[in-house]
Amino acid sequence: MVAIWSPETKFRIWYEIEAHACDAQAGLGVIPKENAEAVWKAKDVEFDVARIDEIEAITKHDVIAFLTHLAEIIGNDEARFVHQGMTSSDVLDTCFNVQLTRAADILIADVEKLLAALKRRAYEHKDTVRIGRSHGIHAEPTTMGLTFARFYAEMDRNLSRLRDARAEIATGAISGAVGTFANIDPAVEEHVCAQMGLVPEPISTQVIPRDRHAAFFATLGVVASSIENIATEIRHMQRTEVLEAEEFFSKGQKGSSAMPHKRNPVLTENLTGLARLVRMAVVPAMENVALWHERDISHSSVERNIGPDATITLDFALARLTTVIDKLVVYPENMLANMNKFRGLVMSQRVLLALTQAGVSREDSYRLVQRNAMKVWEEGKDFKEELLGDADVLAVLSAEEIEEKFDLGYHTKNVDTIFARVFGEE
Amino acid sequence: MVAIWSPETKFRIWYEIEAHACDAQAGLGVIPKENAEAVWKAKDVEFDVARIDEIEAITKHDVIAFLTHLAEIIGNDEARFVHQGMTSSDVLDTCFNVQLTRAADILIADVEKLLAALKRRAYEHKDTVRIGRSHGIHAEPTTMGLTFARFYAEMDRNLSRLRDARAEIATGAISGAVGTFANIDPAVEEHVCAQMGLVPEPISTQVIPRDRHAAFFATLGVVASSIENIATEIRHMQRTEVLEAEEFFSKGQKGSSAMPHKRNPVLTENLTGLARLVRMAVVPAMENVALWHERDISHSSVERNIGPDATITLDFALARLTTVIDKLVVYPENMLANMNKFRGLVMSQRVLLALTQAGVSREDSYRLVQRNAMKVWEEGKDFKEELLGDADVLAVLSAEEIEEKFDLGYHTKNVDTIFARVFGEE
Amino acid sequence: MVAIWSPETKFRIWYEIEAHACDAQAGLGVIPKENAEAVWKAKDVEFDVARIDEIEAITKHDVIAFLTHLAEIIGNDEARFVHQGMTSSDVLDTCFNVQLTRAADILIADVEKLLAALKRRAYEHKDTVRIGRSHGIHAEPTTMGLTFARFYAEMDRNLSRLRDARAEIATGAISGAVGTFANIDPAVEEHVCAQMGLVPEPISTQVIPRDRHAAFFATLGVVASSIENIATEIRHMQRTEVLEAEEFFSKGQKGSSAMPHKRNPVLTENLTGLARLVRMAVVPAMENVALWHERDISHSSVERNIGPDATITLDFALARLTTVIDKLVVYPENMLANMNKFRGLVMSQRVLLALTQAGVSREDSYRLVQRNAMKVWEEGKDFKEELLGDADVLAVLSAEEIEEKFDLGYHTKNVDTIFARVFGEE
Amino acid sequence: MVAIWSPETKFRIWYEIEAHACDAQAGLGVIPKENAEAVWKAKDVEFDVARIDEIEAITKHDVIAFLTHLAEIIGNDEARFVHQGMTSSDVLDTCFNVQLTRAADILIADVEKLLAALKRRAYEHKDTVRIGRSHGIHAEPTTMGLTFARFYAEMDRNLSRLRDARAEIATGAISGAVGTFANIDPAVEEHVCAQMGLVPEPISTQVIPRDRHAAFFATLGVVASSIENIATEIRHMQRTEVLEAEEFFSKGQKGSSAMPHKRNPVLTENLTGLARLVRMAVVPAMENVALWHERDISHSSVERNIGPDATITLDFALARLTTVIDKLVVYPENMLANMNKFRGLVMSQRVLLALTQAGVSREDSYRLVQRNAMKVWEEGKDFKEELLGDADVLAVLSAEEIEEKFDLGYHTKNVDTIFARVFGEE
Repeated sequence: MVAIWSPETKFRIWYEIEAHACDAQAGLGVIPKENAEAVWKAKDVEFDVARIDEIEAITKHDVIAFLTHLAEIIGNDEARFVHQGMTSSDVLDTCFNVQLTRAADILIADVEKLLAALKRRAYEHKDTVRIGRSHGIHAEPTTMGLTFARFYAEMDRNLSRLRDARAEIATGAISGAVGTFANIDPAVEEHVCAQMGLVPEPISTQVIPRDRHAAFFATLGVVASSIENIATEIRHMQRTEVLEAEEFFSKGQKGSSAMPHKRNPVLTENLTGLARLVRMAVVPAMENVALWHERDISHSSVERNIGPDATITLDFALARLTTVIDKLVVYPENMLANMNKFRGLVMSQRVLLALTQAGVSREDSYRLVQRNAMKVWEEGKDFKEELLGDADVLAVLSAEEIEEKFDLGYHTKNVDTIFARVFGEE
Repeated sequence: MVAIWSPETKFRIWYEIEAHACDAQAGLGVIPKENAEAVWKAKDVEFDVARIDEIEAITKHDVIAFLTHLAEIIGNDEARFVHQGMTSSDVLDTCFNVQLTRAADILIADVEKLLAALKRRAYEHKDTVRIGRSHGIHAEPTTMGLTFARFYAEMDRNLSRLRDARAEIATGAISGAVGTFANIDPAVEEHVCAQMGLVPEPISTQVIPRDRHAAFFATLGVVASSIENIATEIRHMQRTEVLEAEEFFSKGQKGSSAMPHKRNPVLTENLTGLARLVRMAVVPAMENVALWHERDISHSSVERNIGPDATITLDFALARLTTVIDKLVVYPENMLANMNKFRGLVMSQRVLLALTQAGVSREDSYRLVQRNAMKVWEEGKDFKEELLGDADVLAVLSAEEIEEKFDLGYHTKNVDTIFARVFGEE
Repeated sequence: MVAIWSPETKFRIWYEIEAHACDAQAGLGVIPKENAEAVWKAKDVEFDVARIDEIEAITKHDVIAFLTHLAEIIGNDEARFVHQGMTSSDVLDTCFNVQLTRAADILIADVEKLLAALKRRAYEHKDTVRIGRSHGIHAEPTTMGLTFARFYAEMDRNLSRLRDARAEIATGAISGAVGTFANIDPAVEEHVCAQMGLVPEPISTQVIPRDRHAAFFATLGVVASSIENIATEIRHMQRTEVLEAEEFFSKGQKGSSAMPHKRNPVLTENLTGLARLVRMAVVPAMENVALWHERDISHSSVERNIGPDATITLDFALARLTTVIDKLVVYPENMLANMNKFRGLVMSQRVLLALTQAGVSREDSYRLVQRNAMKVWEEGKDFKEELLGDADVLAVLSAEEIEEKFDLGYHTKNVDTIFARVFGEE
Repeated sequence: MVAIWSPETKFRIWYEIEAHACDAQAGLGVIPKENAEAVWKAKDVEFDVARIDEIEAITKHDVIAFLTHLAEIIGNDEARFVHQGMTSSDVLDTCFNVQLTRAADILIADVEKLLAALKRRAYEHKDTVRIGRSHGIHAEPTTMGLTFARFYAEMDRNLSRLRDARAEIATGAISGAVGTFANIDPAVEEHVCAQMGLVPEPISTQVIPRDRHAAFFATLGVVASSIENIATEIRHMQRTEVLEAEEFFSKGQKGSSAMPHKRNPVLTENLTGLARLVRMAVVPAMENVALWHERDISHSSVERNIGPDATITLDFALARLTTVIDKLVVYPENMLANMNKFRGLVMSQRVLLALTQAGVSREDSYRLVQRNAMKVWEEGKDFKEELLGDADVLAVLSAEEIEEKFDLGYHTKNVDTIFARVFGEE
């Protein structure tokens, strides 16, 4: 990902755009074929970034600096038709979209790897029961596999979004100073785009419209927020009092300069921060949309920064998250211990339902459950025992029926159905 | 749009969800058919919002308050199976997505109307020549039709994005306290979703995953940014010194309490502000994604605010922009006058190109053009006259060739091609 | 707070500005004294908001509508000098700053109440020992009083920031259409500002510069983030596995429609969401700064929204947080139980230090501590017992010295010093 | 500014913190004096960043890596008391605040230079009349000096804000793992802070509270928004149709690869983009406030990025803006030409007022002005001539009185008063 944003890559893409444009111009008879061919002499030449910077320091114009350097390589005479009829933005904007498209390809591959890890862990822990929590409070049992599966489904949506985002910015424009093709035939744009893996922008001004980039960075922001979502779950799981899972801890690693027993979820905390970094690109990308007339250059400094920063950070974050998921140490026995912390209270919903179904009014059922639950909560009693000793409850539910309400299988019976929805029927 | 977010609509949707769920439960034999049928007794009853609020003041729980009120209408006995096996969020989240889906339908219709206006104005001014500007500075001629056409293309992309965003949030979930369907059959979810125009969320927790909502509000932010883009163009056009267009000004309207001659672009300035308002929903919607475990309620207050605010504001803004576009007063004669402000200087690019093509080196061409351009700029000369009086120029270009460079048709020759790209071949 | 933003309050402030301006104009001899006096006839009249709206529907101008209504009350002839030499923004902007200043006063009082609650709870739990956590993992003991004290210190900084923010926006401007005082004497501005509790804006255009408002809303965003900080701590404390504190739970309140045992930290989760809502005003307030020339109206719709929304939400949030803090149920015994969960491991830092001070190299000390810690972690042993049984440790530390390392007083010895820093020497 | 954020500077600050801490510890008798003195052996040694990175690759802990390297320099034995009783964050957070404080000093100096430039240009153009504009539309005359003066006043407020922001983050903490000073005397913190130019943080956890940093970066966001404000004004002034000022254009510079006549306001457009970049740090800095318990590390990656990026970008932007202001080419004659574009219409406000004062009702005055104004607007007439030919106007105003309304001195009469307010009485 870092290579995509190097000056070398940028100049290489500029060069390809210019060379393909010359080919198209020669095909149209606008420039001599031999001049177009001459440009390809630089095909395998490595451009001298320092030299280009040197020229730019004088001309204060990056594209002219590059073209001057290109002429130094292929000869002034041979280079005279290069860039003809084009404007700098034709090169800059098409190049930026090539870079974003390649970045999107990497991010898509990143998410695919993450999905593979999530799917593997989901099946591995399909039946590993843990307590589901709302508001950080125990609710009903679920399974660790369902947790992985829902992250899979969320990331699968992000995969679709990234593919859409890629399509959004896979356009190029070679349309001249204000987008009218006054000095260049639309066929040149078509040829260059086809060669660079892009589609022609249907209508551009001097620049490619920035709503495309806003949508692209907004998508990165959504993906980053999903990373934060997964990271937050793991951070909670690794808390001392919960300890249902831990990030992998390599032997040589020191968690703290002074407390050797601490195994801190630093990777997922880091991912939480990285999510904020990616997300901060969203608003400026949206502020970039309203350029003045056929363009102003206010978007440029923003993009030079968020282009590499947001994609490199997201690439790093996705790879890191994949490692975390892949190596996450899961503690099923702690999950069971946590679930039983309040001695059956998590089954109160089932009991409530059973009472209602047995004909007790909703309000009465609620009161029956509540009075037994409070004894568990406040006096440390066992919920099932209390129910079995409550005459009013026994008047409507048999001991067997009460026992049945504490069967975990009841809660996992639809896991296969959900897995089929998420991963497809297999 | 406001109606979608009224308490009446909300309770109506809650009611439909509960009633359809009862139907499905009865179909499965879980609850008696007559109880399911009894729920429909409230089909045409208007719920008493004040009464529900009254109950909620005591129970501190909105769904219970509603269910209590429903029981008041259809009878306590008849109501005892309503909501069975469900959790509040099953109702709340499914309802919220119904509301967002309906809001999206309105926004989609809004954009379609805007597109119709943009298309009409684009064809009306297809050949109305105006100067294209980069950096606020005259560049090359373009046409007002192309300006409308590029806004059309941008809004057409927004139409696609809104359709995607609608699909993102057109899901429902009736999956219980932690999403395991422990107390309710997945078939209930399928039935309710089908009846409410949604698809079942493949995997939910207590709530529908919030990456969907983040993507939804991010899309609204992109649409808003496009509105700002169009509004900014019109604000520039209406500036005293430019005056190429004006917002429609009704007879009775007073632009200022003290300066009667002022016709201020207040609608498009207002749209610029509205764009900021819509956009501010994006970041909190993304911050909402990382809920704790199977849900926490932090997203709720955010959504209660940005749900109505962002959609109502965007609906209003799209309608306002459509009116602005529809009635925009365009001044073609001012466009021509502006273009000629610097006496032909905007044609310098063409002359530069002609010199190059006639065999002059790029650097020499640049210098030839520059020295004549500076006389126009600094001494108020006419560019064409200067060129016709420059022996070095005449040495390579004939007077006829120079004259030809100032032909406006040269700049508009590809307008039809671009229109065909944007609006399709007709 | 809601009253500040009512139309009634707004028109009342407009009226006062106009009336004071007339007084000043009369004092300067610009308008007749009797006309200025006549304006005060409306002093105790309640303005008819519906009537003003009716007029505005025709004039499309709010200030003119108000002035027309005022003339209806005090007489057309008497009203003819009202608003003379002024521009609408003189009234609108000065009024907005009066509203923001009053809002700031309420927020300052809110924070003062919150500080009182935090201070009371801090002293109450000054010596209530609980485990300090970094990364969600047990670190070293601290006290609940220190937790309250640091929130006090943070909110005390917010108090200073709010006072600065109040000063930022306590300015008024009566400077005419572009701020030159061409049609009105600066003395009018001085008189009106003095009467309204403001200072004159040193230099205005048609409007008061918006960097002031940006700084104001940025401050609200910081305060909101501090609320989120405190709310997050409480949410963690109330987690089932931690349960060191709970939000107060009123008798009638139902936490969930189906799980009666659940006591959810819904107030602090709500506060987390409210923090996002307040914070979302920050960026648009900053985008409002760059108005075009002497003003454009893009800021207006933004401010009409964020003005009331951000201040009302923050007022509500501060009051809610104060209640939460005031009534927070603290469980000191659970704090102790949690601290001892890993049988002394939290004292490893002290042991490490003791070993180093006894002459063992840093690396060796680390290894000695680590090997005993791992037995606690992995085999459920007691840390102190293990140390007392480790010959290498006993070779440098006596049993008494080891015992001393597990004394809690060691960790709380500087609590008084810190309290003196935070609350002042008492 | 870049130097502040180099690894060399960071390690130098870490070193100073550790060395001063050793001095304090020795003073307290906690560690031997000779060990404290030994640390200063590294005073003039340049730390080997590559070597530290090498160690960190193994230990995965930056502070330990640094301490290991320090021991390599001063000797393992001499180094054994370094960092005693401290935790990594004591070093990291105190260092970060030293860096931010130094960055603030540079930014403060930047603003002071900008203020000097603005003041110089303000006095230079105190009486250079130009038209004031609201909504981009001509309003009343003002002067270029007032424009510079209001930017001065705005930046002067930013100077105060930056000084406050500097005070916000000029704190240090040496308080141990959870901020209790269990293992280190508060006197060490006091000594280190005094030596590093900081004040002790009254109460810290493992970290310095992040509301301070949120307030700091929010301030940078406000300053950036003011930069955008000034930049936007200049961009408008340089528009082809306005051309009241231009950025300085150096001889060698090429504005465009193809249009030699174009002088684009690229610096101020660039500043507009840079403002967005600085502003994007605000929200993540606020999201950083709510750390978990006594700290989590999520803030760290955010700060490693926005710390250098926001301060370096703002430093660059302020310097660039100072150059732009210093060298701005102002065109007073174009200002006059623009003002006269609508033949006196800008004086309509004065005429309106004169009519009212002469006893015509507000409504009638408005109509009289409006009917003459419309002739200027629609038929190209001269406003003064029309008024002089309007019998109804002449019935209340003499020709001399009408002439007087078009005197520019009327609009500039309070410029000195405003300058005295902004720059102080001189």
